[in-house]
Amino acid sequence: MAYFSSVPVFITLFLLNNAVSGATCGIKACPVTKLNMINVHLVPHSHDDVGWLKTVDQYYYGSQNKIQHAGVQYILDTVVEELLKDSKRRFIQVETFFFSKWYAEQNATVQRAVQKLVAEGRLEFAGGAWSMNDEATVHYQSVIDQFNLGLKYLNDIFGDCGRPTIGWQIDPFGHSREMASIFAQMGYNGEFFARMDYVDKKKRLEDQGMEMIWQSSESLKDSHIFTGMLYNHYSAPPGFCFDINCHDAPIIDGESYDNNVDQRVNDFIDYVKTMSKSFRSTHIMVPMGDDFQYEEAAVNYKNMDKLIKYVNDRQSKGSQVNVFYSTPSCYLHELHQLQQTWPNKTEDFFPYSSDSHSYWTGYFTSRPTQKRFHRDGNHFFQTVKQLSVLANLTSTRHSEDLESLSQAMGIMQHHDAVTGTEKQAVARDYDRMLFKAIVDAENNARDALRSLTNLTSGEFESCLELNISVCSFTQNSANNVVVTLVNLLAHTSTQYVRIPVKSDNYIVTDEKGREIPSEVVPVPWQVLAMEHRSNDTQHELVFEATVEKIANFLIRVLPSPKSNVQNLIHFPTEKALDESDELTVENSLVKLTFNTTTGGLKTIEMNGLTETIDQSFGVYKGFRGNNGEAKNRSSGAYVFRPDGGFEKLNNKVGISFYNGTRVKEVHQHVNEWISQVIRVYQGDNRVEFEWLVGPIPTEDEVGKEIVIRFSSNISSKGIFYTDSNGREMLERERNQRDTFNPDMSEAISGNYYPVTGQISLQDDEVRITLLNDRAQGGTSLKDGELELMLHRRLLNDDAFGVGEALNETQYGTGLIARGKVSLIIDEASKKPNHAERLVQHEIDQPFWKFFSKSNRVPSVNKNMIPDFTDFPPLVELLSFEQHSEDHILIRVENFNTNGNVVSFNIYPLFSSLSGYKIWETTLDGNMKLGDMKRYKFNQDGIGSIPSSVEYFYAPHNPMSSDYTMDASEFVVTLVPMQIRTFIIQQKNIVY
Amino acid sequence: MAYFSSVPVFITLFLLNNAVSGATCGIKACPVTKLNMINVHLVPHSHDDVGWLKTVDQYYYGSQNKIQHAGVQYILDTVVEELLKDSKRRFIQVETFFFSKWYAEQNATVQRAVQKLVAEGRLEFAGGAWSMNDEATVHYQSVIDQFNLGLKYLNDIFGDCGRPTIGWQIDPFGHSREMASIFAQMGYNGEFFARMDYVDKKKRLEDQGMEMIWQSSESLKDSHIFTGMLYNHYSAPPGFCFDINCHDAPIIDGESYDNNVDQRVNDFIDYVKTMSKSFRSTHIMVPMGDDFQYEEAAVNYKNMDKLIKYVNDRQSKGSQVNVFYSTPSCYLHELHQLQQTWPNKTEDFFPYSSDSHSYWTGYFTSRPTQKRFHRDGNHFFQTVKQLSVLANLTSTRHSEDLESLSQAMGIMQHHDAVTGTEKQAVARDYDRMLFKAIVDAENNARDALRSLTNLTSGEFESCLELNISVCSFTQNSANNVVVTLVNLLAHTSTQYVRIPVKSDNYIVTDEKGREIPSEVVPVPWQVLAMEHRSNDTQHELVFEATVEKIANFLIRVLPSPKSNVQNLIHFPTEKALDESDELTVENSLVKLTFNTTTGGLKTIEMNGLTETIDQSFGVYKGFRGNNGEAKNRSSGAYVFRPDGGFEKLNNKVGISFYNGTRVKEVHQHVNEWISQVIRVYQGDNRVEFEWLVGPIPTEDEVGKEIVIRFSSNISSKGIFYTDSNGREMLERERNQRDTFNPDMSEAISGNYYPVTGQISLQDDEVRITLLNDRAQGGTSLKDGELELMLHRRLLNDDAFGVGEALNETQYGTGLIARGKVSLIIDEASKKPNHAERLVQHEIDQPFWKFFSKSNRVPSVNKNMIPDFTDFPPLVELLSFEQHSEDHILIRVENFNTNGNVVSFNIYPLFSSLSGYKIWETTLDGNMKLGDMKRYKFNQDGIGSIPSSVEYFYAPHNPMSSDYTMDASEFVVTLVPMQIRTFIIQQKNIVY
Repeated sequence: MAYFSSVPVFITLFLLNNAVSGATCGIKACPVTKLNMINVHLVPHSHDDVGWLKTVDQYYYGSQNKIQHAGVQYILDTVVEELLKDSKRRFIQVETFFFSKWYAEQNATVQRAVQKLVAEGRLEFAGGAWSMNDEATVHYQSVIDQFNLGLKYLNDIFGDCGRPTIGWQIDPFGHSREMASIFAQMGYNGEFFARMDYVDKKKRLEDQGMEMIWQSSESLKDSHIFTGMLYNHYSAPPGFCFDINCHDAPIIDGESYDNNVDQRVNDFIDYVKTMSKSFRSTHIMVPMGDDFQYEEAAVNYKNMDKLIKYVNDRQSKGSQVNVFYSTPSCYLHELHQLQQTWPNKTEDFFPYSSDSHSYWTGYFTSRPTQKRFHRDGNHFFQTVKQLSVLANLTSTRHSEDLESLSQAMGIMQHHDAVTGTEKQAVARDYDRMLFKAIVDAENNARDALRSLTNLTSGEFESCLELNISVCSFTQNSANNVVVTLVNLLAHTSTQYVRIPVKSDNYIVTDEKGREIPSEVVPVPWQVLAMEHRSNDTQHELVFEATVEKIANFLIRVLPSPKSNVQNLIHFPTEKALDESDELTVENSLVKLTFNTTTGGLKTIEMNGLTETIDQSFGVYKGFRGNNGEAKNRSSGAYVFRPDGGFEKLNNKVGISFYNGTRVKEVHQHVNEWISQVIRVYQGDNRVEFEWLVGPIPTEDEVGKEIVIRFSSNISSKGIFYTDSNGREMLERERNQRDTFNPDMSEAISGNYYPVTGQISLQDDEVRITLLNDRAQGGTSLKDGELELMLHRRLLNDDAFGVGEALNETQYGTGLIARGKVSLIIDEASKKPNHAERLVQHEIDQPFWKFFSKSNRVPSVNKNMIPDFTDFPPLVELLSFEQHSEDHILIRVENFNTNGNVVSFNIYPLFSSLSGYKIWETTLDGNMKLGDMKRYKFNQDGIGSIPSSVEYFYAPHNPMSSDYTMDASEFVVTLVPMQIRTFIIQQKNIVY
Repeated sequence: MAYFSSVPVFITLFLLNNAVSGATCGIKACPVTKLNMINVHLVPHSHDDVGWLKTVDQYYYGSQNKIQHAGVQYILDTVVEELLKDSKRRFIQVETFFFSKWYAEQNATVQRAVQKLVAEGRLEFAGGAWSMNDEATVHYQSVIDQFNLGLKYLNDIFGDCGRPTIGWQIDPFGHSREMASIFAQMGYNGEFFARMDYVDKKKRLEDQGMEMIWQSSESLKDSHIFTGMLYNHYSAPPGFCFDINCHDAPIIDGESYDNNVDQRVNDFIDYVKTMSKSFRSTHIMVPMGDDFQYEEAAVNYKNMDKLIKYVNDRQSKGSQVNVFYSTPSCYLHELHQLQQTWPNKTEDFFPYSSDSHSYWTGYFTSRPTQKRFHRDGNHFFQTVKQLSVLANLTSTRHSEDLESLSQAMGIMQHHDAVTGTEKQAVARDYDRMLFKAIVDAENNARDALRSLTNLTSGEFESCLELNISVCSFTQNSANNVVVTLVNLLAHTSTQYVRIPVKSDNYIVTDEKGREIPSEVVPVPWQVLAMEHRSNDTQHELVFEATVEKIANFLIRVLPSPKSNVQNLIHFPTEKALDESDELTVENSLVKLTFNTTTGGLKTIEMNGLTETIDQSFGVYKGFRGNNGEAKNRSSGAYVFRPDGGFEKLNNKVGISFYNGTRVKEVHQHVNEWISQVIRVYQGDNRVEFEWLVGPIPTEDEVGKEIVIRFSSNISSKGIFYTDSNGREMLERERNQRDTFNPDMSEAISGNYYPVTGQISLQDDEVRITLLNDRAQGGTSLKDGELELMLHRRLLNDDAFGVGEALNETQYGTGLIARGKVSLIIDEASKKPNHAERLVQHEIDQPFWKFFSKSNRVPSVNKNMIPDFTDFPPLVELLSFEQHSEDHILIRVENFNTNGNVVSFNIYPLFSSLSGYKIWETTLDGNMKLGDMKRYKFNQDGIGSIPSSVEYFYAPHNPMSSDYTMDASEFVVTLVPMQIRTFIIQQKNIVY
């Protein structure tokens, strides 16, 4: 109300480097609460999607308001002004992408004002990552990266006071245990969210189970984190939305026939009393905000001011309700001080159902090519980061290009981006943005490789269409080509390399001029049949390469054609090969048999086990309803709702067999829009299924969801396993949940879970594992059976906001998607072990290929490559990147789930990086681990959980101090599944 | 952009009493313009309807946003903040109702800031009346009052700097000449509006006739006023609406794929260049605003700042466009400095058509009972004001109650209130508000009359249902009743008084105990048949009263019934009276003949003339369309669009004849929902037609518009006359306009004009005049024929925003309306003369009746009644009211249109009011006339219009100075139609 009271303050002295941790700055300014009252923490917030119905820039600038009224620049403009007017007011800012864009546009005066607000806890960051990432379809590596990005920004601008201590995942459609674990490892005190299976929520409302302590890892001991479920979505109480986007009545306290103070206060007190019954403590948190609210913050605050005043005025008449502006950290601060216990939680919050027919399991697969593209983006991002460190690229342009890719990847993690639940136009903008960021970052890779090899004028071009076996470089060049392979893994890796080629006759040589055996295989018919694909490269050259970090191979064109393509046998166009009507495909590790009459796979032999495998493609018809009642819910971008059951598509398929030396492939022609290559490589202990689906026909007016299914005789007793964001596996039981009896009206989609990396099942003897190449929905609907959803094309919206049917098209027809599933059969173990994780790593981050025109094989400047040889086999290099100009971040991960503690010495690495100092940090990389102080809470039946920071996170002494260290002090110990993050300060930078 | 740059300014020295006139304060701060460029004056404004789709308080507080997003409190909150940020920014505030409500809620700091903004011309008041009044259906007395109210408020708060100099009538649906004249008489430099017949506008766009000099009075010489028609309604250029209510793109100047600066600047410059072709000067005014815009002013200003910056940046590349924040007064200031001439305009801007089938002539009649109620409100308001002055009521409560009524009347003048174009719920709220204000002000009247008479405990109750012949006071009381009559006119008046009574036998005595002849007449059947009307009073007592200012009459109940009701003759239930089948109704001045077979009027004799008059009721069917194309426009609240022609309803009607001594009445029973009383009073030179229409049936799914028509043999040659807001008459010619060839696709509604007080026509010998009791639409579709629309009930919306069909109901059935039309036949004159105006005055403001229980006739304290006897016969007392605690405002009007200058001495009045000083003011009463300095403009073909202020407005010397004056110096001279306003400072107040 007061325009100038607190405005004209120029902050002259402001300490950014206060030695307080995170939101402690704000905690000092937390509101005073009252004993024996219901203390209502009003938390003003705006949920600003980093793209959804509009693109990120449309949201930021407030354009295209016809689609949705939203303009984030104005939210921040007006919120800051309103906060400055009254020191009691609070606001939490969540998405750092938007904040950083806005902050950069402000002049120094405004920036100083914002600094003051943050220092005083009036503007608090919650969440704080670049975007509010999804939890089902993201990969943990990208989540960590985008938290690093956001938290580093906040640290750079605001110091410790800018660091969030609360996870604010209020909108994602289900919640992963890995996300909670990441929060714990970043030192967050708790997380809040708003979506949960509706039966679960109902029960928790009744049992005061809305707030709990979540043990977010089976392996990591200090992974308990306070987790709170919001009462009324993330919205203001019904009738109390004072935003311009709402139609609720304002508080009318003037002399007016419409004066409504008494009535509004009564309503609010009634609401608070009812709500507080579902919560254990005398404190409740009431979010005051919603999607893109506070664009005209004056309206919100003016009315909240009045609400607070008039509700508290009632205390003089005996009311026991005390309401005030607060923040999640102040709320949790109060809970933390209470001597009470909280319920336990161990599993995750998938799948999310909002009513009996709305299981939000469709988005696990929606937009499969986008889901893959963002994984490619991550792959290239990690590649460029490593190359940039190796080549010490620190120019402004290089930093900016890398930063752009980092930001694009942060945006892609948003819960309406990687989820595929955005509008089509927005999806295109995401693609445009990521594509541009990748193309720009190619300059970094090229400049790095010119420095890291002696091919100083090499093009080092990436080919971004390798997924359809097209590379303009190999296609258009009559020259010989050098392919430079970059291995992101800590360990030397041997992998098969495939390169689309034009003619049939090549010779491959390595850096020493030795010929590397290679062969040429045909590109499958369905790829060749793609419209708008150049058909110059109808084959792929295959050879096996071993790469420590960087290796070069020369591919020379030979005059006469090779003969190995002749090894192609077609079925059933030719007569059956033998009386058993069987085709056997076999190498030294794997043996497959096919029924040549049906064209289908029959058995797989590997690891000494033989298992009958019926592999099929099937379709679910998408339910089409008007979304009026729950039972009329359509299958859509969010919701998977099949209309009937699985319908098998490949009862009889045509097959061709390519019987190569190093690779053997069976090409299946399932129907006009589905084909598959089943592939085994010599020496690779897995079977690769490369599927190609699309355009899904809809001429019959039926939307379709396409799945791949593997049926075995394994007696899995309803149990199967899926990964959590690519890390730990979770046990799933068909038709069951850990803490409640689910509504299984949707028996199929209600059993779908997110599969980011793998899904498996086993009995006492055999385990079968599928490794996929992008996030998909998956399940096991019958014992022995595993299923992944590959592609979806639907004709109806599911009425959860996106307002469009998920009907992706390209070149005027349905979108084609192509991808790989790897299958591994092995002995059963008590729980899924690390063997599949090893393979998964290579699948996730195979060698990145760079192409240059050259007639000679370049060599690598080995002296620029650090030494990773001390890394134990199961320890991986999760991150290796420039953290700031003279700081390198290294993140190491032990991905053995059930092994022992491993130790290794990183001094060689430290040394080869010209290390000067080193310290350990929280998972995100921005807070010294010694500064981390997480809240401890008491659990029902367990009591206080002892903090294990001293044990688990304590840095080795030398690492956190400044004195000269002895090499022997650089031993790093990793318990199973542990990730540790270190910052190495380089000595070649002078201050 | 700068948050603090100009904010922390505390104004310590601020002179409210600068001796500058009106917006001169702002003129000093007008933007610097550039020669040889198109200078674009951006005028930020918000058009805030004082009620329309929502009630005034809903608009103010921003409740019911589901109906329309609008909250004026936030507009003013945020605009003031934005203005404080940058001294270049401007805003005009128009509706003083909203401003005053907001200002009262602000603390001293904000109020000081607003004072600063006004003083510096950054916040400028335009219009400045309580509301932006309609121009078709208002009465000039109420317009002047509501300008007095608004301008007085602004003067009290801001002194001279708050005084508007520009009329801002941007939304009313057509423009009256009287409104322009009022602006001129208030000293305004010009007025702007946005609605004009679309053919007229098209022509003016082509001819550079958008801006003109309007000679707004035939009688008043100094009535020329600059008048500007806006180019694109009152909206921002298409694509440049930066308001939260719009969907136009913001200016995106950041590093973004969506950056649109170049494109937006190109578009703006293109627009400006095209627009400037329609205007004569190098300046153009571009309003930046629309209905209820600027709720989030930061959005508007942020984008306008950018637009201005980037458009002007183009000047360095040769652009000739210069754009800046401005105000209408700055714009007109620039035009005034130019040496150029402007087109002339003499007539008015009615009717308004927006396309070939949309004549906005329905609202002339829409909501007939509301239109009447606001006239009753004015009547009572004038009564209470006069009584309050006479009794010297100055207590806070009395002031507040009077102020409430003043404000309610100000609100009622709004162009969606008195027009009847608001939603039904809003109409009810207006009624509630005005009713409450009247009831509250009754206290004032009672307290005044207790002081002005010796009936110190009298109830002095007003009966507000006299229009349906009900008065709870006379109905429920067994006592004798005193009726106190108050005459608002300057001159003693003799009128007939009608009082609903219960039984049949009364005696009326005056203050001296003399019996006054009276008789009792029956209430017509249709009134008696009304549901929800108490039937206790089935008669009305009629007597003639002569009142100087206040007079009391005692009505005593006599034991035995009177006999005069027996004089009732029914037709055609009885046999015809004579062979001619004629009924003659005759008194000393008027003679009517009726055809007893049809029940219809045949002839009227008066003033020595006999004229055949066929009087009928008729219906127009309301056109029903989907409003998609112009030809599908429905008849609605705004638009009158008949589907076919006039259909006569009374070919044969039942009649009854009451043959009284003082009053003779013919009661006509037209059909089940229309009836009429045709009445002549002894000594009254007119015929009164009291019509009663409703409930209009709609069972046939046809909306109906009911008209009353009078057909004569007068050869009017297409010419007829209608008044302008109750003052000067305008000549109309059927199917013609003064400056363009109209589109007469709608031949009926296109000839409708607003009739606030009278409509007439004549030939060389005879003139026939109709005087109505509320604003109505009227026309003359054939020579000799006059028509008034009485009532409308429609089933479709006309799609001009109100979103409802005009389908008024009451008690579950269609609304019943009752009213009077008086007819006068007289000798033709060159133009309508003052005779009808005299009658009109008595019709508009007859004696107000107050009722008290008493057995004796009270007397009036004559010493408290000032002396008006010096007033010439044709000079009327237009206003007589307290202006402030010790200031009395007197407004006198010469309503002779074609007579000579009259002079009279007001010293007796000055003296009896204990006058100490006196000065003349502008029409509104708030600026000393000597301070008025209006712009002079040159007209095409005429050149400079000499200012006649010295002649016309010059105050007599003594009046504008402070020394003691001689009585002889108090002579007031009035030219025809002149109104002069004086403030008398009373000496009994000590300073």
